[in-house]
Amino acid sequence: MTAQHTQETQPKTDVEIAQAHKLEPITEIAARAGVADEALVPYGKYMAKVDVTQVSDSEPGKLVLVTGVSPTPAGEGKSTVLIGLTDALTRLGKKAMVALREPSLGPVMGIKGGAAGGGYSQVVPMENINLHFTGDFHAITSANNTLAAMIDNHIQQGNELRIDPRRVTWQRCLDVNDRALRNVVTGLGGPTSGVPAETGFTITAASEIMAILGLAGDLEDLKRRLAAITIGLDFDGNPVTAGQLHAEGAMAALLKEAINPNLVQTLGGTPAFIHGGPFANIAHGCNTLIATRTALSYADIVLTEAGFGSDLGAEKFFDIKARAGELDVAAAVIVVTIRSIKHNAGVAKDDLKTENLDALRDGIVNLERHVENVRKFGVTPIVALNLFATDTDAERAFIREWADELGVALGEADVWARGGEGAEELAQLLLDNLSEESLAPLYDPADGIENAIETIAREIYRADNVQYSANAKRDLKVLKDNGFDTLPVCISKTQYSFSDDPAQLGAPTGHTLHVRKLIPRTGAGFVVALTGDVMTMPGLPKTPAANTIDIDDDGRITGLF
Amino acid sequence: MTAQHTQETQPKTDVEIAQAHKLEPITEIAARAGVADEALVPYGKYMAKVDVTQVSDSEPGKLVLVTGVSPTPAGEGKSTVLIGLTDALTRLGKKAMVALREPSLGPVMGIKGGAAGGGYSQVVPMENINLHFTGDFHAITSANNTLAAMIDNHIQQGNELRIDPRRVTWQRCLDVNDRALRNVVTGLGGPTSGVPAETGFTITAASEIMAILGLAGDLEDLKRRLAAITIGLDFDGNPVTAGQLHAEGAMAALLKEAINPNLVQTLGGTPAFIHGGPFANIAHGCNTLIATRTALSYADIVLTEAGFGSDLGAEKFFDIKARAGELDVAAAVIVVTIRSIKHNAGVAKDDLKTENLDALRDGIVNLERHVENVRKFGVTPIVALNLFATDTDAERAFIREWADELGVALGEADVWARGGEGAEELAQLLLDNLSEESLAPLYDPADGIENAIETIAREIYRADNVQYSANAKRDLKVLKDNGFDTLPVCISKTQYSFSDDPAQLGAPTGHTLHVRKLIPRTGAGFVVALTGDVMTMPGLPKTPAANTIDIDDDGRITGLF
Repeated sequence: MTAQHTQETQPKTDVEIAQAHKLEPITEIAARAGVADEALVPYGKYMAKVDVTQVSDSEPGKLVLVTGVSPTPAGEGKSTVLIGLTDALTRLGKKAMVALREPSLGPVMGIKGGAAGGGYSQVVPMENINLHFTGDFHAITSANNTLAAMIDNHIQQGNELRIDPRRVTWQRCLDVNDRALRNVVTGLGGPTSGVPAETGFTITAASEIMAILGLAGDLEDLKRRLAAITIGLDFDGNPVTAGQLHAEGAMAALLKEAINPNLVQTLGGTPAFIHGGPFANIAHGCNTLIATRTALSYADIVLTEAGFGSDLGAEKFFDIKARAGELDVAAAVIVVTIRSIKHNAGVAKDDLKTENLDALRDGIVNLERHVENVRKFGVTPIVALNLFATDTDAERAFIREWADELGVALGEADVWARGGEGAEELAQLLLDNLSEESLAPLYDPADGIENAIETIAREIYRADNVQYSANAKRDLKVLKDNGFDTLPVCISKTQYSFSDDPAQLGAPTGHTLHVRKLIPRTGAGFVVALTGDVMTMPGLPKTPAANTIDIDDDGRITGLF
Repeated sequence: MTAQHTQETQPKTDVEIAQAHKLEPITEIAARAGVADEALVPYGKYMAKVDVTQVSDSEPGKLVLVTGVSPTPAGEGKSTVLIGLTDALTRLGKKAMVALREPSLGPVMGIKGGAAGGGYSQVVPMENINLHFTGDFHAITSANNTLAAMIDNHIQQGNELRIDPRRVTWQRCLDVNDRALRNVVTGLGGPTSGVPAETGFTITAASEIMAILGLAGDLEDLKRRLAAITIGLDFDGNPVTAGQLHAEGAMAALLKEAINPNLVQTLGGTPAFIHGGPFANIAHGCNTLIATRTALSYADIVLTEAGFGSDLGAEKFFDIKARAGELDVAAAVIVVTIRSIKHNAGVAKDDLKTENLDALRDGIVNLERHVENVRKFGVTPIVALNLFATDTDAERAFIREWADELGVALGEADVWARGGEGAEELAQLLLDNLSEESLAPLYDPADGIENAIETIAREIYRADNVQYSANAKRDLKVLKDNGFDTLPVCISKTQYSFSDDPAQLGAPTGHTLHVRKLIPRTGAGFVVALTGDVMTMPGLPKTPAANTIDIDDDGRITGLF
């Protein structure tokens, strides 16, 4: 997100913009947000955790979800729009707050580009947020790998629970892009060094513990969910839980700080909670429920994001997170870019910057369907057009006319270049469209996992039918045998298409959803339905960002983005 | 260290004692230590980092090293004595400060017993110090594993440096006791998931990056050392460095907070730096040079510890850390227990609590030799007898008489039960014996690694000769070919004997030191000489501490020790 935005007079990188900004002490940000002194736990001068046990009840503010269209591989700038839009609300005198996910360290070392917004719409201190931040991911890594060590140690020390070493599904994790850890054999070197096992590492963001932290209501609920984790099967095929290994207490102790949301600020001085970072494919893909709730207790309006397009992130937000947390949603901002509309019409990457009204006419069906889908949940959609320097007047006019014709609220966001100032009209539009309607989840989990999958496939993906592989059918039996088939479903699907085929752009219909595998995440409280290959451990590119990241003798970081 | 100390009226666990204590805000501890506001970076209310770039130069205080005799497997309470003794100095009106290593999370989850002192001589908040603390170990884990990922990625992406995948010596690390990670095969699953390799994980404390952080003078020196790490050999047998992979900038950026020492407090209200935690076998085994120097800039007297007995920790402190940091040492406190003297006479574990003056007469040779050895470095030894409830008056009298006869300064420490109050006489004795003599390292590294090893073997271990295995001879050639043979040596040897045979207790002579392997740690700046099996990744016991660690709904941790 570092190039080709509207204002290019002084092209600067994100890290340069962030470093040129004078931050306010976090104590001042906290005071402005209404965080009491006894609840504030500082981490340096510009970051803090908020001890949620010290937050008093209050009338919650309005929650706005920021989602997007089916994206290009570069992404459409949802976080950047969210931050700029919240800053615009602050400029309009509203008590607004940001709630976002934490970046993962692995990708920071891999591809250039952070996950803390961009340009003049960032959360800061961005170097810290993008590196270790307050240690939440490390705490999750520790808890995840403590459980893994306890599993292998249990088997090593006599295996009283009769855990089948071939059917342990719990993997270790690290917050690093390291493809060589995807498939490993552990426990080599003879009987004193463990029982050999085929296993693997995921990136920390893909750990079930990340999903658990994201959905836990409080420490007690966290511990209950940790105990409920299924780590694999015993020799009789019965699930074995972390609770049977007495691992939940140690894991919860390791997560005692991680459960509290992290307070930072935007470049516009708006308070921001950045907390939790589950993937939007293998998990539900939004910041923690605790952060959202805490933000709502302080602010009149809170903007939060769901990963990828609305078919993935928003659906999971509505059906998983909002259900778990009894959240209501006053509006959904759907972020779109002109390039993404052309992309959805099949325009090649190199041609996306060229004016192409025909492509807009073809590709707008994608946006149209995201608008329709959001409405199916009883939520009011507001389209935010994230502007780039290459957008032409004719293209912008086309989008406006489309919105007028369909009666869709649409505003432009020029936030990368101008921060909150570039989204004031959009902010006003949002305020004018906040709805009192109640969020309606799409399905009732009690009706069974097949109903849940079929409902989402039909209503959101517009598939004609759902096909289960032989493996998935076997998984289904295990789910039913153990009563896991009434959990909500978390469908893992490509973000590039409404279908499970990334090549089907636009608004495909009549396709078949192929369910390949069903994984019970009994701690997180959902079942993951895999519809394609999911990469849970990325690799580094030929020239990783780590090659150019540096720090000078004064401690100033360069080359981060 | 939770039982059998002198005061047993109210037996409490360490965590209970620590939780019953009312901590002072870290801002007050910092003010008392003389830390300027702009240098203080708070991590919560009771912990902080001190930004060393903001510390002004001042006349350094006196440095006292705390070391010990050849220990029993339970350890003799060096940290506990150090903390109690420093609190005693505070009680005597001295501006004193503690400098200690950070505990490793892996063992905390394994065996019961923390590493932050014990009883009424602890550093607090002990739960935080024993769990994630300020994230230093996690930062080291990240830096270590980022380098590992960059190595494998380089090989994967064409291997321009011609790294021999069979000769990569850089291992991954995790701060967990997980024996199944000792020997692993990575890179399985076909060509998109890396190049298969036999490798392993160490615990984070054994990472060379831990040793580097421990010896770095500042951020610039840290980066220089990171670049100098040898990661393995190329196909021509030449060393490949982290610098050739352009990894030092990213690693240094990941360590930008970890380089600053962590400020906490003792139960007696004395400021304490707890920073770094290298092993005392595979590395030099003491807190960071930066923490020691920073403490010396604030306090009149600083007590710091070296791991295991003086043959291991103190020798390395004098010959490696003090040399690298140009430190002087005003005295060395040798911690001894009556049980350790009996143990060194060969008394069985179950009989150590029984009065046995004959065993004391036999075992005292061990203490005597540690006293002699410390004097060889030009340092004044002061013996601290760490009292236990089972010590008899006759046994204590025997030790006192021994000290009088040999003209050794000796005092008793009753610190587990009584804190600083129990070490006031010892503190006065220490103050009366602070020496102005200059520390004299034992050897000159310029004379070569064989001379260094032979000098230590002869003068400290009292071996008659040194034998090199065929492997070690090959290693020696590589060291000489690459100019690494003039680095100081870090001998990895059992802590239970002056010899390399753990069964030779007391004060053995006439033995042979067997060097099995020589490993260049070109980043840390020393060569590790292995004389036996070194465990760099511990395992969990049958019933790990993690089974009983818990946290209640109010966030209070129980069962930690």
